[in-house]
Amino acid sequence: MVKVGIVGATGYTGVELLRLLARHPQADLRAITSRAEAGVPVAALFPNLRGAIDLAFSDPKDTRLTGCDVVFFATPNGVCMQQARELLDAGVRVIDLAADFRIRDVPTWESWYKMKHACPELVADAVYGLPELYRQKIRHARLVANPGCYPTAVQLGFLPLVEAGRVDLASLIADAKSGVSGAGRKAEVHTLFSEAGDNFKAYAVPGHRHLPEIAQGLSAMAGRDVAPVFVPHLTPMIRGIHATLYARLNGSVDLQGLYEQRYAAEPFVDVMPSGSHPETRSVRAANTCRIAVHRPQDRDTVVVLSVIDNLVKGAAGQAVQNMNIMFDLPEAIALDALAVLP
Amino acid sequence: MVKVGIVGATGYTGVELLRLLARHPQADLRAITSRAEAGVPVAALFPNLRGAIDLAFSDPKDTRLTGCDVVFFATPNGVCMQQARELLDAGVRVIDLAADFRIRDVPTWESWYKMKHACPELVADAVYGLPELYRQKIRHARLVANPGCYPTAVQLGFLPLVEAGRVDLASLIADAKSGVSGAGRKAEVHTLFSEAGDNFKAYAVPGHRHLPEIAQGLSAMAGRDVAPVFVPHLTPMIRGIHATLYARLNGSVDLQGLYEQRYAAEPFVDVMPSGSHPETRSVRAANTCRIAVHRPQDRDTVVVLSVIDNLVKGAAGQAVQNMNIMFDLPEAIALDALAVLP
Amino acid sequence: MVKVGIVGATGYTGVELLRLLARHPQADLRAITSRAEAGVPVAALFPNLRGAIDLAFSDPKDTRLTGCDVVFFATPNGVCMQQARELLDAGVRVIDLAADFRIRDVPTWESWYKMKHACPELVADAVYGLPELYRQKIRHARLVANPGCYPTAVQLGFLPLVEAGRVDLASLIADAKSGVSGAGRKAEVHTLFSEAGDNFKAYAVPGHRHLPEIAQGLSAMAGRDVAPVFVPHLTPMIRGIHATLYARLNGSVDLQGLYEQRYAAEPFVDVMPSGSHPETRSVRAANTCRIAVHRPQDRDTVVVLSVIDNLVKGAAGQAVQNMNIMFDLPEAIALDALAVLP
Amino acid sequence: MVKVGIVGATGYTGVELLRLLARHPQADLRAITSRAEAGVPVAALFPNLRGAIDLAFSDPKDTRLTGCDVVFFATPNGVCMQQARELLDAGVRVIDLAADFRIRDVPTWESWYKMKHACPELVADAVYGLPELYRQKIRHARLVANPGCYPTAVQLGFLPLVEAGRVDLASLIADAKSGVSGAGRKAEVHTLFSEAGDNFKAYAVPGHRHLPEIAQGLSAMAGRDVAPVFVPHLTPMIRGIHATLYARLNGSVDLQGLYEQRYAAEPFVDVMPSGSHPETRSVRAANTCRIAVHRPQDRDTVVVLSVIDNLVKGAAGQAVQNMNIMFDLPEAIALDALAVLP
Repeated sequence: MVKVGIVGATGYTGVELLRLLARHPQADLRAITSRAEAGVPVAALFPNLRGAIDLAFSDPKDTRLTGCDVVFFATPNGVCMQQARELLDAGVRVIDLAADFRIRDVPTWESWYKMKHACPELVADAVYGLPELYRQKIRHARLVANPGCYPTAVQLGFLPLVEAGRVDLASLIADAKSGVSGAGRKAEVHTLFSEAGDNFKAYAVPGHRHLPEIAQGLSAMAGRDVAPVFVPHLTPMIRGIHATLYARLNGSVDLQGLYEQRYAAEPFVDVMPSGSHPETRSVRAANTCRIAVHRPQDRDTVVVLSVIDNLVKGAAGQAVQNMNIMFDLPEAIALDALAVLP
Repeated sequence: MVKVGIVGATGYTGVELLRLLARHPQADLRAITSRAEAGVPVAALFPNLRGAIDLAFSDPKDTRLTGCDVVFFATPNGVCMQQARELLDAGVRVIDLAADFRIRDVPTWESWYKMKHACPELVADAVYGLPELYRQKIRHARLVANPGCYPTAVQLGFLPLVEAGRVDLASLIADAKSGVSGAGRKAEVHTLFSEAGDNFKAYAVPGHRHLPEIAQGLSAMAGRDVAPVFVPHLTPMIRGIHATLYARLNGSVDLQGLYEQRYAAEPFVDVMPSGSHPETRSVRAANTCRIAVHRPQDRDTVVVLSVIDNLVKGAAGQAVQNMNIMFDLPEAIALDALAVLP
Repeated sequence: MVKVGIVGATGYTGVELLRLLARHPQADLRAITSRAEAGVPVAALFPNLRGAIDLAFSDPKDTRLTGCDVVFFATPNGVCMQQARELLDAGVRVIDLAADFRIRDVPTWESWYKMKHACPELVADAVYGLPELYRQKIRHARLVANPGCYPTAVQLGFLPLVEAGRVDLASLIADAKSGVSGAGRKAEVHTLFSEAGDNFKAYAVPGHRHLPEIAQGLSAMAGRDVAPVFVPHLTPMIRGIHATLYARLNGSVDLQGLYEQRYAAEPFVDVMPSGSHPETRSVRAANTCRIAVHRPQDRDTVVVLSVIDNLVKGAAGQAVQNMNIMFDLPEAIALDALAVLP
Repeated sequence: MVKVGIVGATGYTGVELLRLLARHPQADLRAITSRAEAGVPVAALFPNLRGAIDLAFSDPKDTRLTGCDVVFFATPNGVCMQQARELLDAGVRVIDLAADFRIRDVPTWESWYKMKHACPELVADAVYGLPELYRQKIRHARLVANPGCYPTAVQLGFLPLVEAGRVDLASLIADAKSGVSGAGRKAEVHTLFSEAGDNFKAYAVPGHRHLPEIAQGLSAMAGRDVAPVFVPHLTPMIRGIHATLYARLNGSVDLQGLYEQRYAAEPFVDVMPSGSHPETRSVRAANTCRIAVHRPQDRDTVVVLSVIDNLVKGAAGQAVQNMNIMFDLPEAIALDALAVLP
């Protein structure tokens, strides 16, 4: 059994992590800390967990997490970097679902996240937790930076093309659409039901924090700097990301074969048959990324459609997948539930 | 392993049954028949099942179901009654998710369902599949009539009060609200997104088919005829039923204690703490009924709030629960997934 | 031209009031005050008003409202009672869209609204702004208490039965369902899209502030104390209230005729044909209340279905209707737009 | 008064046309024909029209439309081309809200619409009803082809750039998202609430019928062949189109100034301030197209955001705008209602 602690967990990635870990046969949930909700039973905040999780949120001050094998941070940005050093020094492995360790260039991180990094010396040791690219490194990682939701959908969608050098790297466009849960469980006006419902909009077109993360990932695949265009949108659904990706092909290629081969051994990436249009609900509550690849009118622009559940493969599910890899458990443990449709 | 066949399964109760059975460790899914979709892989119609169910729909004419241990009918009303006799004679147990065997009085059934019953002689043998009332009979049943969605929520909500004789039986009102999936996966104008979305309405106020089923159930609990008022509504969500129940108390009673005691041993009924307001999403995709009981302003009207997922405890989940009981399996096998929230 | 001022207007009743007044040929909009948004153009906060309203929110301290003919308060509860005296003394007429003057019994108001009333001496002078009951008084009113959204739908639904003495007054139940905009444009967790979406729940079953308002209204109609049961619910749509009303008849009555006669001369109450089920979208963005009356199975319980748009007939539209009456304008001016369907 | 007839009008563009014309002071609605609904009062099908439109649908066989000044076709594709000749010969002007006369190259039309054109000789006479491009021709048109919804949003978004020759014409990408009402009021499975709700998908990526219309429009602006990439998506809202447009700039340009100048005199195109993100709800039920233009990170790709209500500026509203132009009425008559927000 893996002894597990969670810091935070009062938001949507948190409740999703709890939903998955509560049914994980190898996870022994020891503590869930929250300053704001200390003393409140977890199941009082999230009634779907009634009968499954008996723990209450505990005050961080009173909670010894150093006895855990792994600690997840389901916190806002900037929390994990304050506490990671102490846990790592105590031999605890850390998975950060926030962004503190995703960007390898610290000044870039600091300029996008508008804060000073508290432990820049750990950034180089962190492993970016996208198993489809870094599975071997994750296995031995002490500190995993769990990818962002948009970056997961976009990178998995572009990966075969960019790795294989099949596209003009100056032409990459990611038009991404997210469900509202991606904005978290914070009380804010723009994500109220009456604001986000029956409404569609782009946001952060001048620049979104996930852009440098996507650019870093694509650059690593390509072996040189890539600067994609990235436009996120808010769509009136709860869960799901749909990334529509555009790139100019630099020659002829068997697109379907390229994708199928690249992901043949991946348990959580499903390349759909040629001509498909993946729907976000086909991955709702599941840890799957479904991808379809098109070349409309046989012209030179490839269109890739990539969908995930932002809270699962885009957050909590991928974090559990990373834990499974880190602790040599079967990678799909606690992650084999089928998507809920309709 | 229980050898399982399914007739129908191209609708929402069908895909939900498949989602549950695909992960049921004791179910060996042998055949899924559909005239309309014969030859189509199940996962082509329902992409959430990709990688989990390799079967294609088979033509009923070419499919021998008599080798199964149990056959589920996830069909429109009027199909099971045509085929039950042959299966039962072959020793196959049958669970009908439609209404053919729910009403014990055949003329009543015929008048509400506007068709002649094809095998009235089987009706008396059928067991009404509400485990909280009929678990022992279900264990030995050859033919189970799986309850309707509204009747499940309403009966479980009224049960403790009516069994205990605590309410004026002439005062029962069930104001019920259903998600749109309750209307099925038929192409109809009134359940289009643009008709049912951002909209709320009552329907079938003069009389709904679930009324005689509810009346029969309450009458059985009370030991005498009960004729409740039942008003269903359509609410713009996909899954979920919320029943708001009203009754006049006929004396003083510890309501919270009454409910907690009645359901103490029930694995799928959760009596929430006093003062609670159960949300439908707290049972989304789970086989749970959550109930709260109120007595506003300490007056003589009790208000019971009862929520289920209409496709799970209100249909496919309850059907699997019945199968588990019938085959002496642990009752919660394949039914312990937590609700998906948000 | 009527010189109009608005206090508040940064919420949903406010933007709706602006939408209606911007196209009101007799309204001369002079000032819109808001402490929080002072200096911000109204159309920057509400882009649907771009090109139609050029005013910016002004600081209350710098804004002289005493030159107006009428001032609307689209503010939280407790604001109008602080400022009404000064405006009234200056000869300005006041319409409060909040609750400060709705309850005639001040101690009752103070206990439900948890604050001390700032000008109890004005309460008796205020006229309750439900034109279908108090049109003549409204005509001469100095201070109008615009009704709450639930109370509008519930009172209009019960009115013909209660006025005519046709029902057992001890049997009244109002099961009401509201769209999320009824909770306002405040940043709160429970009205986030990801909380209220695809979800249904009752709330405030032990007691909601609109209960004493409804009780007061029904009591006035009946000529004696009436204490209804009132259960509000939150439904995942933006606008709309659907009230399902139950009462026991105390004799035989032509229900359809009773309703049609009572509302024959009312421009904004539409009694639908016998057997109808009004939908909330049939009044979306319109000032109409649509009502249908049923007597299921010819038993002794009458079921009334009453729908309004909570922001129009339940708030801003009714306020403009009251203004039209107060200033001897045609009652339907600026209120004749048809409902937006779908 | 303009004598108006409507053919069809049982769908969403139809009810929207009726909503607008019912409040049009210069429109005299003479007849609304429908084979399927003949004899049914229009307000029985669309309750939002109760009290405003007293007509019933009439059988086309019994209805003389040749006495009208103008006839709108709110019908499926392929109907108007059967009846236009007779009406035009009788001196009646025709506005087709379907696609029969949108594509000037008849073989192209026939290959995309999978039918033989019934009156190819009229195609050249038809005027494409996009007032921002063809206002003068519309004024004198006998036959107006009202543009499609996607083409309206996409063309208005690209227009200033393409007219001014500011972009690489080989680089145009239109990633468009539509509300579900765009699919019409037909009973189909994929637009059911339970299918389209809480879900997002691309569709018709290999080729959508609006692609040749968009290509024709952009080519006319550019003066040479343009072949954009066009990817439509279905988003879970009722009304609204959001087009996100990408193009590579071929030099430096004052984008904001370019757009503001081009649309300075247009009553129904609103260029928002620099940095804006237009929301679809800001045009809900209004005849407005709102546009914002971005150049992220000052790189060479321009991103244009263009929103309309698909049923208004994308269909019925634009049709009324065309009628107003054709009959020398003020262009905004019956079209000045503000968008409904929230």
